[in-house]
Amino acid sequence: MTKTVAVVSGGMDSVTLAYHLADIGHELHLISFDYGQRHKKELAFAKKAGDALDAPHTVVDLSNITSLVAKSALTSDAPVPDGHYAEDTMRQTVVPNRNAIMLNIATGLAVTIGADNIATGVHAGDHYIYPDCRPEFVSTLETMLRVANEGFCSPDFHVLAPFVTITKGDICALGDKIGVPWLDTWSCYKGGDTHCGSCGTCFERREAFAEASVDDPTPYLATPEYVDPRV
Amino acid sequence: MTKTVAVVSGGMDSVTLAYHLADIGHELHLISFDYGQRHKKELAFAKKAGDALDAPHTVVDLSNITSLVAKSALTSDAPVPDGHYAEDTMRQTVVPNRNAIMLNIATGLAVTIGADNIATGVHAGDHYIYPDCRPEFVSTLETMLRVANEGFCSPDFHVLAPFVTITKGDICALGDKIGVPWLDTWSCYKGGDTHCGSCGTCFERREAFAEASVDDPTPYLATPEYVDPRV
Repeated sequence: MTKTVAVVSGGMDSVTLAYHLADIGHELHLISFDYGQRHKKELAFAKKAGDALDAPHTVVDLSNITSLVAKSALTSDAPVPDGHYAEDTMRQTVVPNRNAIMLNIATGLAVTIGADNIATGVHAGDHYIYPDCRPEFVSTLETMLRVANEGFCSPDFHVLAPFVTITKGDICALGDKIGVPWLDTWSCYKGGDTHCGSCGTCFERREAFAEASVDDPTPYLATPEYVDPRV
Repeated sequence: MTKTVAVVSGGMDSVTLAYHLADIGHELHLISFDYGQRHKKELAFAKKAGDALDAPHTVVDLSNITSLVAKSALTSDAPVPDGHYAEDTMRQTVVPNRNAIMLNIATGLAVTIGADNIATGVHAGDHYIYPDCRPEFVSTLETMLRVANEGFCSPDFHVLAPFVTITKGDICALGDKIGVPWLDTWSCYKGGDTHCGSCGTCFERREAFAEASVDDPTPYLATPEYVDPRV
């Protein structure tokens, strides 16, 4: 049985990733990162996924490196931008080199427990704003990790990114098919008790369900129409 | 002026790295990692290098990920092996994927402050036991980092590893030429007030001075002859 360390934030993409890998027979170990983000609430949802899938769940506290990323709206007192993940408004939520940092730590865990793969839920919709969510990133990372851990990991060690060429809507359709409990996933950056419905990640969540023609069971505080701020 | 984030542990290699980069005109920002290691004492020596070179010094606390690396002798209650860094005895001190984790976080800082390079003091003597200290590691890491941070870092972003093809003795000779204050560097894994002279890193330190024919000003508790445990 192939063994995989999956990075799971508790959002719909990464929870679907975990359910998908379990569905195709992987033995899972989930890893989440607490980097002082406002959507810390997500972590409880990552734990739920681990419990449901009978997978160990490790939380790595990276809040000590937030001083490095003080420019990020995710971890600063700057207001979280409303609206869509359009390049200009959302670039400020990028923590520099974030995915690479998380996936390298996930690899440290993978090598320690003898896992064959790490997995990430990055998807095609992320490409426009996140350079570390592209297929080239996944392949160059895999190459580097095999070199860095030669003799300690399998020569076939893989960075799995099954969603890297599909959209969030496609992920939603897949998750619906395999029974992902959507109410046990969290997207809102604002971290309240209920999804706000208005922030960038809530818009993306709502759009994913709409695109997939899947009924969205999520309660939202508001469901404003999306207006492109650039128009 | 080129700006560089240099990973400096406080050991003789990384302190020489910082002095060398300053000597050739780099603007420096030093970064050290506290990963719960016994040789935490090194960090004070990294700070001394920053003070001497008028470079900011950031310490990133990674002790929260030590649960990932519980197998490592550096961070566990297992006895630190004495003797030489021979493959069999010292493999247990390898924290999986450690260099990649540290250099990826250093890159997060580099992108945040607009630095052109990161730098590491890995050297040829490390190759035998650490796969993440080889030239192939440095080049595949650089490729990955440029992809991961495209649009956020310079397309010429470099991972500098000027010592990757030279020995610790060569580093000592270089350091001697540019005036590295050896008493302001720390090697001993045992973390006492004085270098023990007997642990793997103390042996390496003593050998480096001998190879370089540089007078070693370090006080040691003992200076046993090296006996290869495999013979």
